[in-house]
Amino acid sequence: MSRAAIIGGGVIGGGWAARFLLNGWDVAVFDPDPQAERKIGEVLANARRALPALYDRALPPEGRLTFHADLAEAVAGASWVQESIPEVLSLKHQILPAIAAAAGPDAVIGSSTSGFKPSELNAGGTNAIVAHPFNPVYLLPLVELVGDAAACARAADILRGIGMFPLTVRKEIDAHIADRLLEAVWREALWLVRDGIATTGEIDEAIRMGFGIRWAQMGLFETYRIAGGEAGMRHFMAQFGPALSWPWTKLMDVPEFNEELVELIASQSDAQSGHLSIRELERLRDDNLVGMMRALRRSDSGAGGVLRAHEAALPEQGEQDGLPVTAARQVPVTWTDYNGHMNETHYLEAASLATDRLLEMIGAGADYVASGRSFFTVETHIRYLDEIHAGDRLTVTTQVLGAQGKKLHLFHRLHRGDALAATVETLLLHTDLTTRRTSPPAPEVAGAMADWAARHAGMPAEGAGRFTGQRA
Amino acid sequence: MSRAAIIGGGVIGGGWAARFLLNGWDVAVFDPDPQAERKIGEVLANARRALPALYDRALPPEGRLTFHADLAEAVAGASWVQESIPEVLSLKHQILPAIAAAAGPDAVIGSSTSGFKPSELNAGGTNAIVAHPFNPVYLLPLVELVGDAAACARAADILRGIGMFPLTVRKEIDAHIADRLLEAVWREALWLVRDGIATTGEIDEAIRMGFGIRWAQMGLFETYRIAGGEAGMRHFMAQFGPALSWPWTKLMDVPEFNEELVELIASQSDAQSGHLSIRELERLRDDNLVGMMRALRRSDSGAGGVLRAHEAALPEQGEQDGLPVTAARQVPVTWTDYNGHMNETHYLEAASLATDRLLEMIGAGADYVASGRSFFTVETHIRYLDEIHAGDRLTVTTQVLGAQGKKLHLFHRLHRGDALAATVETLLLHTDLTTRRTSPPAPEVAGAMADWAARHAGMPAEGAGRFTGQRA
Repeated sequence: MSRAAIIGGGVIGGGWAARFLLNGWDVAVFDPDPQAERKIGEVLANARRALPALYDRALPPEGRLTFHADLAEAVAGASWVQESIPEVLSLKHQILPAIAAAAGPDAVIGSSTSGFKPSELNAGGTNAIVAHPFNPVYLLPLVELVGDAAACARAADILRGIGMFPLTVRKEIDAHIADRLLEAVWREALWLVRDGIATTGEIDEAIRMGFGIRWAQMGLFETYRIAGGEAGMRHFMAQFGPALSWPWTKLMDVPEFNEELVELIASQSDAQSGHLSIRELERLRDDNLVGMMRALRRSDSGAGGVLRAHEAALPEQGEQDGLPVTAARQVPVTWTDYNGHMNETHYLEAASLATDRLLEMIGAGADYVASGRSFFTVETHIRYLDEIHAGDRLTVTTQVLGAQGKKLHLFHRLHRGDALAATVETLLLHTDLTTRRTSPPAPEVAGAMADWAARHAGMPAEGAGRFTGQRA
Repeated sequence: MSRAAIIGGGVIGGGWAARFLLNGWDVAVFDPDPQAERKIGEVLANARRALPALYDRALPPEGRLTFHADLAEAVAGASWVQESIPEVLSLKHQILPAIAAAAGPDAVIGSSTSGFKPSELNAGGTNAIVAHPFNPVYLLPLVELVGDAAACARAADILRGIGMFPLTVRKEIDAHIADRLLEAVWREALWLVRDGIATTGEIDEAIRMGFGIRWAQMGLFETYRIAGGEAGMRHFMAQFGPALSWPWTKLMDVPEFNEELVELIASQSDAQSGHLSIRELERLRDDNLVGMMRALRRSDSGAGGVLRAHEAALPEQGEQDGLPVTAARQVPVTWTDYNGHMNETHYLEAASLATDRLLEMIGAGADYVASGRSFFTVETHIRYLDEIHAGDRLTVTTQVLGAQGKKLHLFHRLHRGDALAATVETLLLHTDLTTRRTSPPAPEVAGAMADWAARHAGMPAEGAGRFTGQRA
């Protein structure tokens, strides 16, 4: 079991703790704040709701969370130590040597600093790297790594193992990469509000109704490459480069940061979002992020690609009741509907993913499909036996009822915890993807089908073979 | 039939043309470029693939597209005239008076200008407003409106009618709102590339793996409000305000725009995205946007809220074969799977939406659910009769097979064009949402159920009442 030490347990430290815990790491927290346990608990509650919902497979069992009054005790035995204390260099200079003294020689010591460079952090002779994450740390993949190349390489491996996207920065610079871009927008946005051009709400609309949704999947340059059309990036640059000399920003100057500006921004923000508590906003944000990141899985773009790669590395499930577990997952809130439970469509989606897994198991997975052969579903019968809710753990077993010639007859059981929540009976026909007509399966696939059918023969299958509305 | 005139048919003009056409407007194009018809055709092909995929209901029949060699002929009778010619003020000063002379007194004359203010555009006494859209215009909702208040108000109504989000800017300013933010990021990004801190690809990752995906749903200020935690926006400002005086950006200065910088950016962009053609990139972008925007529908956030509001205003469908049409839509590419056709799950999703529509028709829609009563599906039988592909028009009819007490027995037929592609037989039970137990429907709902059942009694329902694998 790997262990992470979290030094400083605010929103960012709590997010790191949740990310490690939900990926099966033990987490030891050091934070003198008497509220630390409560605060981390709240972040963790959000994370348990959202992070597993990104994946179509179950994450490993959660690690153990402990709190320590002694920094050295928290750090001992940790392969990752993450410092997330306030952004004050003198404080960091006190804590980093204490971490270095307690940490093992191979431990990664990461700092969540938004702005400081490794040369500043390590002025006292320590060996921390910048490992700068983005809120919510349990959902967003990005971590900027800056510092010693060997340490960054070790850190990158660990981060990929917990489903994150390490971006190693080539040269140290104040605020790394992303926060430089954010700071630029922040300064311009403050001008726009101060000058009465737009409110905070209008600026948010200008972002999320337009370029924000573009950037979520391609970023800045790839988006502009497309805008250049067939003529490409050089054409785009020629067209918009000259704007650099136009008065399109007020960025040559900085707005004065005073009480009046704070009040203006804060009161507009209250008008915009004050009807929702921070907890409600967090959940809205998380549900939206989960939905959008799940949408990006399909094309492997950005965060969707990170998810898929991480999911492929998650452990296989075993057996239950003598049947293979073909799906195990947490139910995302995006699968629920106006009745406050999992929508009927997603009972079939879960069963469909279980069918895909069974097909992999008989040698009819992605490679087989690439060779021009597959199975098409021709008939499905679903019995909805119990409600399923967001956050429920769903386990699907699959029984092979029949395997004759091109026919593959499956019986999925959907379990919510220990309760049987649905059965899905499915008939598939082997199909040639070129002619789109039925065809005999490859001999090795036919053999595997027959083996599974023989293994499951004689097992009960209550609810199979029934028509809709048939009396029990 | 409303008519829009599109003056200048590049990527932006073509996007406007597609947005109007697919929302049922006739579109008249004036563009002296001999390639204009081809270029608009390509944008329109993309739009036909993507825009209808956002909605769970069919858009109105497409309008008529015409090309005109004479500007006045194109403009005559148009209620919206959109100028999207190159960003050169002297050219705009030639074309705007010609438009004004040919346009009706109530026509909105919009300019797609990224940077010019209405006072600059109208220096020659014209009455255009800024109507600045974002690429791809057929998908992104945002249009910044600047200029005469009455004209902006009329424009806003029309834009909402074609599914867009008008943002009226309070004061005119160079580059309006969104492009000021974009310009700030662009300048900072050019510095980062020029100074060798990051490549174009790394900057794109820094955006899309982190804040980009945050911004797509909430923008800048609401995101930071959450970062401030319970203490809110004032706390956030106190924490990060001081960074304004730190050297976190190079924005006090502008990088020199020279051949070397263009070459550096363009060659990095080639390395990052050169393996995909612009067409492939466009389709990848559009599929991602459709997927993310559809994900945002659930919470009504940002672009998702715009979609839902527009969809609710789309026309109802009528009857087919004596049965009500309960769903009519285009199949999004996100509904297809590795077999190159619509995945089995979405046959049920389409039927489930048809069930929802039928429930609305019998008085058991959103208000009824809010009163604590609903119908739960207990059993479903699907027969997959034909493949369905992305872009296909799908029409669902619903036959009420039975309505006795709490039982509602439905038979959906999914048609791909004229062909029957599936049947979905569904049994629902009326349920009390408080006790989660079955209960009798309200009398008026029971009455409507009975009426529909009587109307459909005796009609054939081939394929109903069968079990999985039953011989035909």
